[in-house]
Amino acid sequence: MRPPPAKIGQRLTDVLTPALMISMPVLEKNEAAMRAALRGSGVALRPHFKAQKSSACAKWLQKQAGSELAGLCAQTLTEAEVLLRSGATPSCLLTNEVVGPAATARAAALAVDYPGVLSVLADCEAGVAGLSAAAVSAGAAELAVLVEVDCGQDRCGVDSSRAGAVAALAQAIVDAPGLRFGGLHVYHGAIQHVRTIAARKAEVEKGPKAVAARCLAELKAAGIDSVPVVTGGGTGTFELDVASGTHTEVQPGSYLFMDGDYGRNADTPSKFAQSLYVHTTVISAARGKRVVDAGSKAVDLLSGVPKAVAIDGAAPPGLDAVVFSSGGDEHGVLRGDALDDDAVLPVGSTLQLVPGHCDPTVNMYNEFVCVRDGVVEDVWPIDARGPG
Amino acid sequence: MRPPPAKIGQRLTDVLTPALMISMPVLEKNEAAMRAALRGSGVALRPHFKAQKSSACAKWLQKQAGSELAGLCAQTLTEAEVLLRSGATPSCLLTNEVVGPAATARAAALAVDYPGVLSVLADCEAGVAGLSAAAVSAGAAELAVLVEVDCGQDRCGVDSSRAGAVAALAQAIVDAPGLRFGGLHVYHGAIQHVRTIAARKAEVEKGPKAVAARCLAELKAAGIDSVPVVTGGGTGTFELDVASGTHTEVQPGSYLFMDGDYGRNADTPSKFAQSLYVHTTVISAARGKRVVDAGSKAVDLLSGVPKAVAIDGAAPPGLDAVVFSSGGDEHGVLRGDALDDDAVLPVGSTLQLVPGHCDPTVNMYNEFVCVRDGVVEDVWPIDARGPG
Repeated sequence: MRPPPAKIGQRLTDVLTPALMISMPVLEKNEAAMRAALRGSGVALRPHFKAQKSSACAKWLQKQAGSELAGLCAQTLTEAEVLLRSGATPSCLLTNEVVGPAATARAAALAVDYPGVLSVLADCEAGVAGLSAAAVSAGAAELAVLVEVDCGQDRCGVDSSRAGAVAALAQAIVDAPGLRFGGLHVYHGAIQHVRTIAARKAEVEKGPKAVAARCLAELKAAGIDSVPVVTGGGTGTFELDVASGTHTEVQPGSYLFMDGDYGRNADTPSKFAQSLYVHTTVISAARGKRVVDAGSKAVDLLSGVPKAVAIDGAAPPGLDAVVFSSGGDEHGVLRGDALDDDAVLPVGSTLQLVPGHCDPTVNMYNEFVCVRDGVVEDVWPIDARGPG
Repeated sequence: MRPPPAKIGQRLTDVLTPALMISMPVLEKNEAAMRAALRGSGVALRPHFKAQKSSACAKWLQKQAGSELAGLCAQTLTEAEVLLRSGATPSCLLTNEVVGPAATARAAALAVDYPGVLSVLADCEAGVAGLSAAAVSAGAAELAVLVEVDCGQDRCGVDSSRAGAVAALAQAIVDAPGLRFGGLHVYHGAIQHVRTIAARKAEVEKGPKAVAARCLAELKAAGIDSVPVVTGGGTGTFELDVASGTHTEVQPGSYLFMDGDYGRNADTPSKFAQSLYVHTTVISAARGKRVVDAGSKAVDLLSGVPKAVAIDGAAPPGLDAVVFSSGGDEHGVLRGDALDDDAVLPVGSTLQLVPGHCDPTVNMYNEFVCVRDGVVEDVWPIDARGPG
């Protein structure tokens, strides 16, 4: 009942708006830049699928990167299901606790269908017990479970300052029927966005680096010598995590797309560029004001207001100073002196918005519209869309 | 690749989380209460589909209400397409400007396939010209276009203080090939949430009521006697809009579900109750803290923080004082004294969140899980999901 917003070969200016567009040349550069940054480091790259939620995009990534990827991360069970059942990745780390009978049963079913390639997290004995019961019930022999350790975000994760807690939980996994101890998950989402590289480095050192080192020592002292993976690190910290020497794997996701929030990190622009835009149409105009068809259902507004740009044409003078505000769920309002001129961005014009945060913006769309030189090159369904 | 989150007959506690659940008995009461409130008023009810985006829900609504509905409103082209092509409504008012070649062509195609039942908005001559060209090109004879008038929200809409502007645009529609003048759209979203009934009444009188009256007088003076519809009014103001005497139709949507924001309106609880919840699982626990699997991809956070409740069981003492904060895209963090007790909401417990705003929350899900007496009664796909 719903035709796709774009067809391959169509000009961007003919695409139904609001649409979520990717500049393919920039995506290619970002993807290659990440691999180049990690090559030779000895630290594996496992990009995070939560930023894209599209098996077509994941397959593209796997095709570009080949064996340089350790696999992909998922953040939700649906993401893991879509990734493995679509064949988009040979190895999936679900970077979250899997809790409750419905979720553990589905994780165990995946582990049966794709033996030896699914890992999930636990941060308490109840979590391990639930996973073990589901694995045994499903007949899964090799569901890998990593211990999540809190390294400062105060969200999930074992409190590593409680002596012996991490080792005890690792031992519980070792002892649990149907499970395999997969290692440590030591990730701090909030510090990805600390603005200066010096301040971010300090946070990494007192957070993930110090905590991972302490946990590794504790595990060794407890006789658990085999810690297959220590994973963490996002687009903001991956180079620092590599330098830490504690992590065997990093899991950045946003680097493919970037966003307004990452754009405010002082060092980011040097390596990655904005490839993701909300393509929108001016649907109403008045002196000093334009209304576009992108509101809170079309672009994330929690991580700063989107920035209006015009990558599909010549940007009018003064567009830099135009300010976006929410006009509700389906409208955005642009205001600025440049819009006093009726000839600037008249009704029917298209322009682009840089989202404050890429992940929740992606989650609102059904497709990526992949564009090169102003023409639609591909349409990628966002088939793992949704919160669960 | 993605199994549904719930099966009919399943207990709510076995549903995969996060899930968007509807309490069916409350939904039924809300639906009936709205019709009862309008019965005999002479003002038609055209519920807004933007709040639900599910053709199954729209069909349910049409079945409950029968001929007491004038049809349904849509806010996006996709919503209109899903509504008409699924047969969920005999009449659709798209309450937004339709601008640009892709959008006008699709609206015209709908008008050809479903003659005489689609209305859209325009607020400028360029908008009318674009719709007319598309209607003529598609061979649509009866695409109805309403003039949107700004009544205070300062978003879209003709500025009615410019003498003659509304009449001129109405005349442009009358004169445009392929179009039919459908009336006036006079709606103010922001005043739906003015907290006291007295203050809201004052806003309605100086806003939609005064503006609609002025426009009707202007149209009459210009010789445009036939104004088929004057439409506006949401869940917060519909009774006031009825009392205004200017509107022939109201278009509430949220009344079916309600949300935290509407719950803060002083008078609302008397008529409608909360039927929509985010069903979530505790995935991590520490002293004074529980982490649930619902973050910014699962529940709207722009209109106030969600409220934690426990409609699926006995709420622990002190749950009222527990405060939700975002733990990022996939996590919510609950804190409160009640959570100092390890036995309260342990890992694996389920509870529910009342979203701050229902519409953008619905837009993040793929299905409604319809529940009665703790058992899944139906699963309704949110098939018009998406921003466009």
